[in-house]
Amino acid sequence: MSAFPAVVGPDPEAERAARSRQQTLTKPPGSLGRLEDLSVWVAACQGVCPPRQFSRARVVVFAGDHGVTAAGVSAFPSEVTAQMVANFDAGGAAINVLAELAGAGVRVADIAVDAAPAGTAIGAHKVRRGSGNIAVEDALSAEEALAAVQAGRSIADEEVDGGADLLIAGDMGIGNTTPATTLIAALTGSEPVAVIGRGTGIDDLGWARKATAIRDALYRARSVVADPLALLRVCGGADLAAMAGFLAQAAVRRTPVLLDGVVVTAAALVAEELAPGARAWWRAGHRSTEPAHTLALQRLDLEPIVDLGMHLGEGSGAAVALPVLRAAVATLAAMATFDAAGISTAPA
Amino acid sequence: MSAFPAVVGPDPEAERAARSRQQTLTKPPGSLGRLEDLSVWVAACQGVCPPRQFSRARVVVFAGDHGVTAAGVSAFPSEVTAQMVANFDAGGAAINVLAELAGAGVRVADIAVDAAPAGTAIGAHKVRRGSGNIAVEDALSAEEALAAVQAGRSIADEEVDGGADLLIAGDMGIGNTTPATTLIAALTGSEPVAVIGRGTGIDDLGWARKATAIRDALYRARSVVADPLALLRVCGGADLAAMAGFLAQAAVRRTPVLLDGVVVTAAALVAEELAPGARAWWRAGHRSTEPAHTLALQRLDLEPIVDLGMHLGEGSGAAVALPVLRAAVATLAAMATFDAAGISTAPA
Repeated sequence: MSAFPAVVGPDPEAERAARSRQQTLTKPPGSLGRLEDLSVWVAACQGVCPPRQFSRARVVVFAGDHGVTAAGVSAFPSEVTAQMVANFDAGGAAINVLAELAGAGVRVADIAVDAAPAGTAIGAHKVRRGSGNIAVEDALSAEEALAAVQAGRSIADEEVDGGADLLIAGDMGIGNTTPATTLIAALTGSEPVAVIGRGTGIDDLGWARKATAIRDALYRARSVVADPLALLRVCGGADLAAMAGFLAQAAVRRTPVLLDGVVVTAAALVAEELAPGARAWWRAGHRSTEPAHTLALQRLDLEPIVDLGMHLGEGSGAAVALPVLRAAVATLAAMATFDAAGISTAPA
Repeated sequence: MSAFPAVVGPDPEAERAARSRQQTLTKPPGSLGRLEDLSVWVAACQGVCPPRQFSRARVVVFAGDHGVTAAGVSAFPSEVTAQMVANFDAGGAAINVLAELAGAGVRVADIAVDAAPAGTAIGAHKVRRGSGNIAVEDALSAEEALAAVQAGRSIADEEVDGGADLLIAGDMGIGNTTPATTLIAALTGSEPVAVIGRGTGIDDLGWARKATAIRDALYRARSVVADPLALLRVCGGADLAAMAGFLAQAAVRRTPVLLDGVVVTAAALVAEELAPGARAWWRAGHRSTEPAHTLALQRLDLEPIVDLGMHLGEGSGAAVALPVLRAAVATLAAMATFDAAGISTAPA
């Protein structure tokens, strides 16, 4: 894998034009609140004002298993990962329903599910069956870490080449909040107990096992914290590495992204290390109840669009936020101006 | 006007069925956060589980002028109210754009604009031209207050008879946050200075004038605080009275409502007095930046769905929240169950 090229930020000229156009629309200045900022960001990402409504928003769910489930860190058995991949494929999961409502397509990529791929397309970028148990061993070999980042990068390229104008990464993998929390703790220098959540719903004993596993993984991770690829190898996983490659490449390809919850945002922290400046192409869809998520968002200086107490993953929080982003675009693109509507403005 | 009949709450049996169905869907219990509660509420309102997606959501914008603008309480001149009614009619305002995106229709009702009605349908329920200057006089006569509540009631009936299955009230009226804030201060026993906001964007001097007007209106209102019709007469306005009648009648007609910002929620406080229990049929779409809005939501025990720093009115905050409510309905209605998808559940 070659290194990521330098990330160029969204277009400052379109940003200025969008901010200026907001002042001409038939409403008091600032009265659309965050919708105004979001609309300006989309215009800057697209390099055009007014911005265009998204015509091909795409959710990619990155699926993978995690050997650390052997440490009893999840409320669900590992076999659920493969079962949920089949559920995505059949259209029955939350992300299928939410993406359809938001006008987004869904793709599932089996990066490291501990089962045979559910189909050729789903398994096209598979790196291995399950990642290692990060409590006691590296998640990946160096070659696998590279291959997984490259897989995510290729998926982003495929999507952008296919016309995607907004990307969402989602996650599916029993146990995946354990490596995600480890990555966030490592990259923010946090005490693990302050950031460990309940994942899919573990009890107190499970939480204690998860804390022990994260502490052990973090101990091994500390020496490689300045090297994002090594960090993914030691305490990440193939699915997380692929998400990081995907998010970095989306920025390289100048394509806006809505981030989801704690797993995707952990990958985003790594992606910002792989391709500094990438975060300018991202906005945070929602705030998850996982404590580490808020920490990661703070580090990325991103404020979530919605805060609904969700903690499902799959891209579901971002999919719920997508209509708000669409609303932002629609107001800037379609509202009348004071001049056109013949409306008196406020006395200056 | 006859009094409102007793309000019967949403269906507890459908509510139980919905809560129980949520536990069978392919996701960890509770992981959809507030979407789960909202889906249960819609099922209870519809009396059926799973709930149906809204097929005819309707926004009614209640327009009216306010004599209190003579006291210099707004950043915009009164003539903007009529100009914005024309803008709604032409489809150029924020609510037009946001409602279309959310799959809702928009209707404008000129209740008390200080101009000739923009059309026969828009003016069908007009009560008067402008309401009185509440800083120095009653907003309405007793007959006008009754007629305005009845107007809103009739509009709710027309909408429900026309097939509306979700209602949103919006507001348009230069100066209307002054009577709205007065109503909220009166009904919650608050100090006015604690709850007065910037409306469409007044400066410090304008804020001081607004505070004086509200204090004077509140002084006159205190003796009638237990009589909602008298309160609307003394310190409300025809548009606010119509909104109150609309919101109360929506509950009588067992039709769910998404509330908008400070003006609509002020009317909702009065509607709950007119028809106790009506609030069970309402959810709060958004949190406005107007301080009195949060106070009114607390009194109604409602938690907003989104919090985006908006303060426009028109129903715009509720329209942005509508896709979230649709998402809640869609998940409960369309997600696969663990059984149907053959997925292992968490060990009990």
